[in-house]
Amino acid sequence: MNEEEENLVDPSHPRYKSLMIRKKVADAGVKGMLADSAMIAHGRGEAFDYLIGEQTTPSAYEATKEAAARLVRARKPVLSLNGNAIALAGQDFLTIASQLDCPIEINIFYRTPERMGALLGHLKMLNTKLGLDVEILGGVPDARIPGLEGPRGACQSNGIFESDTILVPLEDGDRCEALIAMGKEVIVIDLNPLSRSSRKGTVAIIDEVTRVAKNLIQMIPQRPAVSEWNNNQALQSALNSISANIENQFQ
Amino acid sequence: MNEEEENLVDPSHPRYKSLMIRKKVADAGVKGMLADSAMIAHGRGEAFDYLIGEQTTPSAYEATKEAAARLVRARKPVLSLNGNAIALAGQDFLTIASQLDCPIEINIFYRTPERMGALLGHLKMLNTKLGLDVEILGGVPDARIPGLEGPRGACQSNGIFESDTILVPLEDGDRCEALIAMGKEVIVIDLNPLSRSSRKGTVAIIDEVTRVAKNLIQMIPQRPAVSEWNNNQALQSALNSISANIENQFQ
Repeated sequence: MNEEEENLVDPSHPRYKSLMIRKKVADAGVKGMLADSAMIAHGRGEAFDYLIGEQTTPSAYEATKEAAARLVRARKPVLSLNGNAIALAGQDFLTIASQLDCPIEINIFYRTPERMGALLGHLKMLNTKLGLDVEILGGVPDARIPGLEGPRGACQSNGIFESDTILVPLEDGDRCEALIAMGKEVIVIDLNPLSRSSRKGTVAIIDEVTRVAKNLIQMIPQRPAVSEWNNNQALQSALNSISANIENQFQ
Repeated sequence: MNEEEENLVDPSHPRYKSLMIRKKVADAGVKGMLADSAMIAHGRGEAFDYLIGEQTTPSAYEATKEAAARLVRARKPVLSLNGNAIALAGQDFLTIASQLDCPIEINIFYRTPERMGALLGHLKMLNTKLGLDVEILGGVPDARIPGLEGPRGACQSNGIFESDTILVPLEDGDRCEALIAMGKEVIVIDLNPLSRSSRKGTVAIIDEVTRVAKNLIQMIPQRPAVSEWNNNQALQSALNSISANIENQFQ
């Protein structure tokens, strides 16, 4: 969003919140934190959020509680963040990592030294600003996720590689599957209930990442109990919310 | 899409066509043809196209035929193209303008001289390449669309201003309403059946712009007859396609 566009966003606009979220992504793009495809990915998310009603559905709320329960129970949790997740909710994820006393690992699909540097710098700046000392990994990969070629498979042994439970907001389908194949509990945040990540994740939260992060911050201190979780049921529930929102609109 | 990303697109990928369409938008961005928000808009479209099934539905096909009929019948038709429409289907829209013997007017939401210059240059290059002499307007606005402030309302008297029927792929809702208020027949191409443009248009085609352009090129020479058109029914039909695609996915 350039200055001209930014000035057009009026707080009285019915979609002001969505436009302000979009602005965060655009700003991060200017700072070199994002791959070219990040804006397109964000637009896809916007469309699904619009269909879901731009609010946390009851089933997404339950999924988030289940995610909080599993992160609290984990022996070695880790938050795996990409550029969009850091741009949208970097500060909240630092708070969550601090609550869980776990590291954050930056894990980006299109890894370049510049982008990795920009993301590391941004999180370290927020860490200082919040007075936290969350460990930020990803800069010096020394292990590999089996089954992923090239830089996409790079990770750190004391982060993603050895974790038992991993939170992956906005994750690529291939990598989600590879993490599941490693035997980890994979908690996905994704707005597309039909994506491979949503389908393959242990618990998929179909909700917008900034809303999820705020909810997790409220839920983690309550240390909810883990339940039997039916991921498919939760995904169908998200699809049903969309169906309910679009039926009989014009008749 | 940078070189690295481009190399990851394999023709055997199940979504190869969609990825190649995306590449056209990314390339146009690099050439300065697009506003920052263009990639996000494209992503939103991708999500809706995915839900629709990435193919022309029967009701979209009927809407396209109705659009062809009304463009053929028009006394003074015009194609109003923005950056995304030119990036995705500039060549096909030149062919359509030539079939209809009408001008193209470039009309972009975030007008800057640089972006306008890049789009004019691109269309003129394609005009020459195709051996056509379609009139390309938009560079020297001398009239205004009533009700639109600033550069968004600028248009040309011998193009949009005096037209009776206007094709607007991927149009902003405000501008669509303003064109309707001028008494024009407005033919919308949009992947979101719930957008203001889709709701307000005379005929809304809920389909991906490159597929629509190809269909129009086939249909226009057949000079189909205009019918009574129920736009709301067509929009509900598009929503019903989405519902059908997402019901009982996980049960």
